[in-house]
Amino acid sequence: MEFFSLVEPHLAQVNAMLEEQLLTDNELIQEVAQYLLLASGKRLRPALVLLSGQFGVSPEPFQAKRLVEVATAVEMIHMATLVHDDIIDDAVLRRGMPAVRTQFSNAVAVLSGDFLFASAFRLFSRAGDLAIVELAAKVVHVMCVGEIYQNMDHGRIATEEAYWKRIEAKTGFFLETSCRLGALATGVPEEIQVPLARYGHHIGLAYQVVDDLLDWLANPEKLGKAILEDVAAGVYTLPIIHALGQPAYGGAVQEILSAAEPGRHVEELRQILVQSGALDYAKVQAEHHIAQALDMCGQLPASPARSALEELAEFVLAREY
Amino acid sequence: MEFFSLVEPHLAQVNAMLEEQLLTDNELIQEVAQYLLLASGKRLRPALVLLSGQFGVSPEPFQAKRLVEVATAVEMIHMATLVHDDIIDDAVLRRGMPAVRTQFSNAVAVLSGDFLFASAFRLFSRAGDLAIVELAAKVVHVMCVGEIYQNMDHGRIATEEAYWKRIEAKTGFFLETSCRLGALATGVPEEIQVPLARYGHHIGLAYQVVDDLLDWLANPEKLGKAILEDVAAGVYTLPIIHALGQPAYGGAVQEILSAAEPGRHVEELRQILVQSGALDYAKVQAEHHIAQALDMCGQLPASPARSALEELAEFVLAREY
Repeated sequence: MEFFSLVEPHLAQVNAMLEEQLLTDNELIQEVAQYLLLASGKRLRPALVLLSGQFGVSPEPFQAKRLVEVATAVEMIHMATLVHDDIIDDAVLRRGMPAVRTQFSNAVAVLSGDFLFASAFRLFSRAGDLAIVELAAKVVHVMCVGEIYQNMDHGRIATEEAYWKRIEAKTGFFLETSCRLGALATGVPEEIQVPLARYGHHIGLAYQVVDDLLDWLANPEKLGKAILEDVAAGVYTLPIIHALGQPAYGGAVQEILSAAEPGRHVEELRQILVQSGALDYAKVQAEHHIAQALDMCGQLPASPARSALEELAEFVLAREY
Repeated sequence: MEFFSLVEPHLAQVNAMLEEQLLTDNELIQEVAQYLLLASGKRLRPALVLLSGQFGVSPEPFQAKRLVEVATAVEMIHMATLVHDDIIDDAVLRRGMPAVRTQFSNAVAVLSGDFLFASAFRLFSRAGDLAIVELAAKVVHVMCVGEIYQNMDHGRIATEEAYWKRIEAKTGFFLETSCRLGALATGVPEEIQVPLARYGHHIGLAYQVVDDLLDWLANPEKLGKAILEDVAAGVYTLPIIHALGQPAYGGAVQEILSAAEPGRHVEELRQILVQSGALDYAKVQAEHHIAQALDMCGQLPASPARSALEELAEFVLAREY
């Protein structure tokens, strides 16, 4: 795949810089950092930074240390929000491993998150462009406000409007900003920055909707229960919201959600989501955002980086994990 | 006093900007922000920013919006660390009021702190100088590493060396940086920035030592117990460290600290700290740092701002709360 061959070697540079930044002389930070690096994710955000930076004026943009710095800082922000989110959600696991707060303590999780934020902003400022720092601060701000909103009753309303607003603040704007930051790092002209940013926005929304779908498709027995816990905590996924809104199915879904042990009705709920067309509806929404992301690629100059972004879009839709 | 007449009106601008920044359209953030503004402290850090900015080239530096922005952002960083520290320390009270984590929840405290950090970095970047952002990120970084260190056994050793290292990371460097940031905001020449920064460093250390003294002088019955809780958590204050190190008193102090209910021996411990000269020793240390801060003032051009800094130094030593 164009995507992997183009991005993988450069993500390796990001990983190396992450290690360099996080493996300090402090043993506890080292231990937490090792742990976080072990539990690492897909590096979607730094990949977007790196690819967006390819449309810049620099002759060898991938070599530009600045682009790698920004990509690394973006991943640090992501890691910081994950570590803090686990405290907020009282999460026990993260990516199949005990969360930092479980493995260490809430205190260590608060501090590691703050340490990651501070390290990220040191890297962002090192990139030497105030617009980069400003945008990075804005994305953290937007995510915080979004999370705070979600923690209030207003965020827990089972409407599609509240859903889209939530995932935009959580992921859409962050992925949009990742593209913008990569573009800023290598001086990509504004007329190319705009479609790149819109691409990131649509990829972000599609990614979250696919997450909701995978709960029911990938491993329904295991993930269905996690979903019901989310619902119990007031966080509704798109299929549930859609099914709740249908007169023929809403009552049955509500009954399951209100049951003493909703976890016992996971398979029943899954069947309702299939029959009511709620999973199909979510799939169509994800496809719709991927189609818009691909439209945005059409506005970019043809290049290996554009092909890689197109493949990335297809991957977001097709992924099974 | 020169200090109050010079600084108070401008601190009012900082307070106004804090309100403007924190009173968003989100009800929960508003509620937390109102709460934090109500429980506000002495605004020592923004005062240092404002006064240090008076040695710059701008004709009316107090009017400079940039200086107020930086002062406000510095106070936001301070507020963020307090809110997060309360989670780390499982604190119930802060400045006599329930801590944010007690009044709301750990989740809200994590998010409010992150929100304050992000808001601060938006303001710092708005000030339009990368050196400001870089230094601000560095101070958060240093405080995190210091806190992480304190959370490990290494920070809980009853040696003076560990003590000075801890308060330098927690307060000395932050107050030093507050002076630097004010100086950067108005273009203060480097030869004046250096004594300003040293001044802040010594003020910070003296401030913390006086805090330790006030535990025993201001309201020994109430605060002595808090101190014993600190010691139980492995955080030693300077008088305790000094008394522990004296052959004639160390054993008795150790016995009280190891007692089943050390809180019952507060008065006894206070008498040991008086008799052993431990309180006097701490007082001398605070005076020593204040003397050095005043020395640094001697290197500044004579001006109302210099007089105000001198008065501030005297206040730090003389304060009774």
